[in-house]
Order: sequence, then structure tokens, then C-alpha cells
Amino acid sequence: MTRRSPRRGRAGRRPGGPDTRGEILAAARVEFSDRAFDGASIRAIAARAGVDPALVHHYFGTKEQLFLAAMDIPFVPSELAAQIVSGPIDTIGERAVRTFLLTWGDPVKRAPILALLRSAMTHDVAAALLRQFAARVMLARVVEGLQIADRELRAEAAVSHLLGIAVMRYVVRIEPIASATDEELVTLVGPVIQRYFEDDGNP
Amino acid sequence: MTRRSPRRGRAGRRPGGPDTRGEILAAARVEFSDRAFDGASIRAIAARAGVDPALVHHYFGTKEQLFLAAMDIPFVPSELAAQIVSGPIDTIGERAVRTFLLTWGDPVKRAPILALLRSAMTHDVAAALLRQFAARVMLARVVEGLQIADRELRAEAAVSHLLGIAVMRYVVRIEPIASATDEELVTLVGPVIQRYFEDDGNP
Repeated sequence: MTRRSPRRGRAGRRPGGPDTRGEILAAARVEFSDRAFDGASIRAIAARAGVDPALVHHYFGTKEQLFLAAMDIPFVPSELAAQIVSGPIDTIGERAVRTFLLTWGDPVKRAPILALLRSAMTHDVAAALLRQFAARVMLARVVEGLQIADRELRAEAAVSHLLGIAVMRYVVRIEPIASATDEELVTLVGPVIQRYFEDDGNP
Repeated sequence: MTRRSPRRGRAGRRPGGPDTRGEILAAARVEFSDRAFDGASIRAIAARAGVDPALVHHYFGTKEQLFLAAMDIPFVPSELAAQIVSGPIDTIGERAVRTFLLTWGDPVKRAPILALLRSAMTHDVAAALLRQFAARVMLARVVEGLQIADRELRAEAAVSHLLGIAVMRYVVRIEPIASATDEELVTLVGPVIQRYFEDDGNP
């Protein structure tokens, strides 16, 4: 499929009115809930909102950015993933735990991720949405920086540990993990997760 | 609070009729949803069902057993925990992963745990129920068998990893972790979880 350059200036089908942004976001929420992440397209979202696709790109940028705006996620997961991967490989476990806890520890950042996770726990399309978004946007960024065997499986094992900690600490709130400090968890969990990023020759 | 011996034979307030078991289970579900695990009592459940507490003990045994029956959980988590802890300490990680995957891999066993987890994700009392049940029944059994510092926190870190794998593998169903074999995961995750059961002198 060929695409027009997003900023070509053909945004004239309907100019951006005061609530055009809101209408695009509403259309995006419907499109993502109906078709998950892979099935949703900027073009279809623009059509739902009755605007030119170029206007959607102009307001929101990429599909990832539109998704984050539609879901009210106030940070960019792929940037966090890039930060985690970009430092020295022998402290990646520690960086992963610290970055993750900083994000989940902030109620404003936690609420929308938790909403996504809750939907995924009960609805198949929401599960697909979370799965595809995680795979395309976050895991892809982590995995492309790794030079080890089984890097997809290892990255997912690491993420699963972080996700489980988030559920135990912030949702089920079981003690002592709920009241442990971030640094206690970085010290305990960091070296454990680090194991996944060390190519030890195991299958 | 003193208690009558459960089998003293004073079960005469109402004899067990054909659906007395069902009424006790229904009363237990209400009591557990209202008061979580710690707040629920056999006595209060018996009162709701209009039977003598001895009859509840007679039919269902302990509060843990009644809880499992009320929630349709077809296995005894404290027995699984005991199995995991009872073998050699240097293979406890592997045993934990294998036992956990066998249980979650069975749709009949997975469904009720997933139902509990879903409720816990959205309702505070359900979160308390899961938290208290996990702490009193499963974690207590694991922790009492460990001779390491910070054993509660370490046991919870291990459980959080297993829980996160269950969510990624069986709920979000992200690849490749969803299609990996149990043994691949035992090989990859077992030695990582093992770290939590080794007292390495870290704080």
C-alpha cells in the first residue's frame, strides 16, 4: 500500500475545528477497541472522524503516538524501552526494574496501563490490543538491541516478571512487596532479571 | 474466642438436607465476597445458611477447604506449595515453574484462578480476598520451609514472576511465550527463580 507523505498539505477535506482533536481521539478509541492495534489504521480513524488522514498525522504523529493519546498514556513506552536498552548490558536488569517501578509508582501513569491490563484480562480484542502494542512497540525496541539467543522469549520472560511485580505490588497489594522501597526491589530483582540478558549458552 | 469442637455432635439445629451443601456454598460465596478471607468465619457462614457450624466443618473441613469449594478451585494450593518446598532446595526454582505451569496449563484449573485474579483487578474486597488467601495459605507454606533472609519478600518476588508469566502466556497470549513448551520455560525460568531461594548475603 502506498501512502501519501503525511505533511503534504492536502489536509483540506475538513479543517481542524475546536473539537476536531477530540473527535479524532474518540474515533481512535472505537477503532482500536474494534480492531486492536495491528488492524487499526490512521486512514480508517480519519474516515470515522470525517477528516483527512494528513490531519490525524499532523495532530498526533504516528499510530503509536495516536494510541498513547487515545488511551491517555502520559509517557512513551518505546522511549522507556530505548532508555533501558541503551545503557551498559551488565546493568540492564537494574535499569529495567528502576524504570518500571518509577512508571508504575506514579498513579497518573499507572491508571491507564492498569485500565488496559484490566480490559485485556476480560476481553479478547483488548488482549490482542495489548499484545500487539507490546510486541510492536515495546518489545521490538528491547529485542533489537540484544545480541543473545532466544532474545524474544528472554525479553518476554523479563517483562512478565515486571508485570507480575506490578500486579502483586499495586493491585493485590500483598505485603511485604507492596511496601518495599523501589531501591529494595531494584537490589533484589535487578540481578535476577539480569540473568535473562546474559547469553549463558542454554537453549 | 473459644470454639466448640467441630465434631461434637451438636449439628442438630438443622439436619443436612439435599441442598444444604449448596446453601452453605452460596452463603460462603457471599461471606467471602463481603468480608474477604480473614473477615469470613465458618460461624458466620453457618448462620447465613441457617445451619450449625459443625455441619459446615463436617461437609467442608477447614476455612481454606470451604473457600476452595466455594470458588470451584479443583486443587489445593497449600498442597502444591508444600510439594514445591519439600524437595531439594537447589531445584526449588525448577519445581516451582513446573508445578505452576502444570496447574495453569489445565483450563479447568486455570479458569477459577483467573476469575479470582480478574475480580482482584477490579474490586478492592476481591483484591483483599486474594491477598489474604495467598498470604495465609500459599505463601505461609512456602515461607515456613525457607531458611534465608527476607524470605517473605523473596517468596513473593518468585510468585510475582510466575503470575506475570501466567498473564503473558494465558491471558495476553503474546508470542513466543504463549507457544513455548512447559519444559522450555522450566529450563529458562527455573534457574532465574532459583536465585530468590539462595541466600547470597545481599540485604
